Amino acid sequence: MDSKTISFENRLKENATEVEALLGRLLADSCQESEVVRPSNLLAAMRHGVLNGGKRLRPFLVIESSALLGGNHEAALRIGGALECVHCYSLVHDDLPAMDDDDLRRGQPTVHIAFDEASAILAGDSLLTYAFDIIAAPETDLAADRKVELVLALSRAAGIGGMAGGQALDLAAEKKTPDEQGILTLQAMKTGALIRFACEAGAIIAGATAEDRLRLRQFGEKIGLAFQIADDLLDITADAATMGKATGKDAAHGKGTLVALHGQEWAESRLAQLIDEAGALLAPYGEKAVVLIDTARFVANRRN
Amino acid sequence: MDSKTISFENRLKENATEVEALLGRLLADSCQESEVVRPSNLLAAMRHGVLNGGKRLRPFLVIESSALLGGNHEAALRIGGALECVHCYSLVHDDLPAMDDDDLRRGQPTVHIAFDEASAILAGDSLLTYAFDIIAAPETDLAADRKVELVLALSRAAGIGGMAGGQALDLAAEKKTPDEQGILTLQAMKTGALIRFACEAGAIIAGATAEDRLRLRQFGEKIGLAFQIADDLLDITADAATMGKATGKDAAHGKGTLVALHGQEWAESRLAQLIDEAGALLAPYGEKAVVLIDTARFVANRRN
Repeated sequence: MDSKTISFENRLKENATEVEALLGRLLADSCQESEVVRPSNLLAAMRHGVLNGGKRLRPFLVIESSALLGGNHEAALRIGGALECVHCYSLVHDDLPAMDDDDLRRGQPTVHIAFDEASAILAGDSLLTYAFDIIAAPETDLAADRKVELVLALSRAAGIGGMAGGQALDLAAEKKTPDEQGILTLQAMKTGALIRFACEAGAIIAGATAEDRLRLRQFGEKIGLAFQIADDLLDITADAATMGKATGKDAAHGKGTLVALHGQEWAESRLAQLIDEAGALLAPYGEKAVVLIDTARFVANRRN
Repeated sequence: MDSKTISFENRLKENATEVEALLGRLLADSCQESEVVRPSNLLAAMRHGVLNGGKRLRPFLVIESSALLGGNHEAALRIGGALECVHCYSLVHDDLPAMDDDDLRRGQPTVHIAFDEASAILAGDSLLTYAFDIIAAPETDLAADRKVELVLALSRAAGIGGMAGGQALDLAAEKKTPDEQGILTLQAMKTGALIRFACEAGAIIAGATAEDRLRLRQFGEKIGLAFQIADDLLDITADAATMGKATGKDAAHGKGTLVALHGQEWAESRLAQLIDEAGALLAPYGEKAVVLIDTARFVANRRN
């Protein structure tokens, strides 16, 4: 590991600490922003689903994309936190017995195991709802038109045309393996949409031009695809101890992946290509884009 | 039934037709507003949860509250549609086996029966998400600051401090019957919050003064309470055929209600009192408020 890598990983880690602190504060029993009753058991289930030591990759992308284009850090942090609530809600619901039926996540019992199914359903619902609360709240220092853009882009990335629709396609794929185009669509929706949103959100926060916004969006698409290919590689190469969750499940369920279709060697080379394409997209920003380009490399090369 | 009642019920019915038409268009496979892939099976599950012939009371309250204060009808209709998506998502999730475990709703199989549990979870998630899409979409002709107010008020009415939190308290009430204050809090959150939001939303759409907004909010609280007392009365007096769903479940589950606590006679008199209080709140608007006051009466006296 060279010094550049170490410095990138430190930056990612410091970001995770900052995001975790914000979410911990917002989901605390004593949160100042909330003047209403919040049932403590449901709040605890929400915390269990969110405060789990994740890498906070999506908030990192929001914050770094916003920084690249001159956006306000505090606002980007809060939008990153909102996005993380959406990501974590999707994990809580995906882990349910009626969906992927997973008992473990990051080595810890999933929410419906630690609490119960009803609490997991409601905790997911509440996290999704809370994401929009965070964006719209007066504490998020952004002009109203940017907040509206963020609500629209996030709801489309998370909804039936994005992540939730992708999960529906993924469940259907257990019964009938999709073709290559079907796999690409499924993955662009299920995991790609939120990652693409993360990068686009940075541009919205910064009030960027349409050209900058499109560039960040396309960069997000490259990272999203790289993330998924790396994930599929990990599913066949890593063991459960490294991942903190069950592995080999995709193959066991007969789910189609690009790696299953084209092999490991193709996947490695496609990942290298995606890093290049992501870098080329951000070339106009020169040195300023180095953190985001490092992120693309990190996502493609991650081993857990 | 006198002619005034008939005319009110016609108005409510015409509203339901208009809301149903909007939601049918937005959730159609061919919807023009959506440029993305929407998996048809998930979309069908969403339609099943929404296009069920409901009275559309909440959209009616949005539209009439907005009309009272001079708001734009088309915008109010869309916000009403968004609210109905949130209401219907909550029914889809509440009916799940891990929650209230209901097979019938309005005489039809619930979403997890007509489709499957995973589809019902995802359809609910997607309806909740879509509500925020509708509010933020360019097709909703409202200034950005009003959209942000609506997103904030709706997310708080629907989330852990509102409806979802109320459902968590309701599930907990099956194990330990709450006291009177506990019942009031639970009901204000579980059913009251969305009804209160409906009335407040009308004021936000119309860009009303803080005073008007507070008055509509308080009116919404009265209707919300009346709605719940009427519901609790129906649970003990109506039969399943009238309701199109299982009745007597609250008593069977030992759930505390104000009716169980104080009796049927008290409930009838409290409903009459709430109609008076609701009417007094809107007295400053004179004749213009007659539809909303009729709505309070309708909610308190409804028998299905």
